[in-house]
Amino acid sequence: MSEIPGPGHDAFPPSDRAAVYRAIFQRRDCRRFLPDPLSDELIGRLLLAAHHAPSVGFMQPWNFLLIRSPEVRARIKQAFERANTLAAQQFSGERADLYRSLKLEGIVEAPLNLCVTCDRARNGPVVLGRTSQPEMDLYSTVCAVQNLWLAARSEGVGVGWVSIIDPEDLREILALPESVVPIAYLCLGHVPEFGPAPELQQLGWLDRIDLGSLVFEDRWGQPSSIATGTQGSASG
Amino acid sequence: MSEIPGPGHDAFPPSDRAAVYRAIFQRRDCRRFLPDPLSDELIGRLLLAAHHAPSVGFMQPWNFLLIRSPEVRARIKQAFERANTLAAQQFSGERADLYRSLKLEGIVEAPLNLCVTCDRARNGPVVLGRTSQPEMDLYSTVCAVQNLWLAARSEGVGVGWVSIIDPEDLREILALPESVVPIAYLCLGHVPEFGPAPELQQLGWLDRIDLGSLVFEDRWGQPSSIATGTQGSASG
Repeated sequence: MSEIPGPGHDAFPPSDRAAVYRAIFQRRDCRRFLPDPLSDELIGRLLLAAHHAPSVGFMQPWNFLLIRSPEVRARIKQAFERANTLAAQQFSGERADLYRSLKLEGIVEAPLNLCVTCDRARNGPVVLGRTSQPEMDLYSTVCAVQNLWLAARSEGVGVGWVSIIDPEDLREILALPESVVPIAYLCLGHVPEFGPAPELQQLGWLDRIDLGSLVFEDRWGQPSSIATGTQGSASG
Repeated sequence: MSEIPGPGHDAFPPSDRAAVYRAIFQRRDCRRFLPDPLSDELIGRLLLAAHHAPSVGFMQPWNFLLIRSPEVRARIKQAFERANTLAAQQFSGERADLYRSLKLEGIVEAPLNLCVTCDRARNGPVVLGRTSQPEMDLYSTVCAVQNLWLAARSEGVGVGWVSIIDPEDLREILALPESVVPIAYLCLGHVPEFGPAPELQQLGWLDRIDLGSLVFEDRWGQPSSIATGTQGSASG
């Protein structure tokens, strides 16, 4: 690290800073994967990135279940299909047609599946920083997922978060203990492409919200004068 | 983006990939801030990074409340102190002494406070991907926090997550509507240093867990043979 003191002295050089923003802006939720396997070394790097997420009271509540078995994946895929049938019924008209046309997971074809869990009992009943907000351990685990997702983008590896599964199915199939909650079921692998924008945006499901309308000052609803950049500059 | 097809074709060049990992490994939960203000342009970049987090069904459920008012901060600080008094009583002996010696927030002295919230009613009652796991919108908002945290590290800006506040106090002080949940109350600013390891690790509160012990294969408790790297390589 730099020895020069003062504010911002430890900012990254411009090209390194740009690389961090590039990972953030070009990350995608991927559903289409190439069959090429991921090396153990690469998987190890991604898990190490996840393990260096912030965690409340340095609790590190996460575990990582690598799922390679075709039998286990087939059961997970069935659980997805059950949940997705129920989900599709909640949309109607054109929206339902579009919903049913979407590819929402790559459980069987991705070279690797990964379930990231949160052990709510780790380090005993009292955790520093979790006394007012008991859900902080869940949030720490989500930070680990996002670390992994960004590291994967820099490695050219796509990640897709499959949220359309009943967590109780995951608990049973993966034999999770009672204190352990499944947070994210992920599909990982190399991908044909990282699209220029999120797929749901490209398909017209929803637009990106204007950032300026989401920023307030000092209290809810009070507009902020801050310049929030343009959409275009970020979608590259 | 590269035109060369094939797996991994869109991996970053090695130096850019290293920059992403550097942001991940050198990010810290900061509690000590320099008074130098953050420019609006810099704040805008951080918010844009947060706004490009993954969100369930492209819901983008987040808002960003910039808190600059000394009066509002004083009320937040009081809410922290109430919660922290209760929290300290849950530890005993040497642990209680160490707890009371910790600096756990920088609410008043940081040049900027930021509350990131989740609007659970955004885009109506049915959200794609949230039908089986209604908490997915909360997790999307946490991904936005982690994006901002990593972008801030690359800018030489420290971020501290203050979780020792009763969320109902935040709701009242910031006038949050009923459907809006406070997810993260953050302090931001330039910092004297980014420490070589998390402060709670340096002070001996808890050790970093060996990553290998956290990785399973196909079901809970089944060891994985994957090489997970060393602790040392990641703490630089």
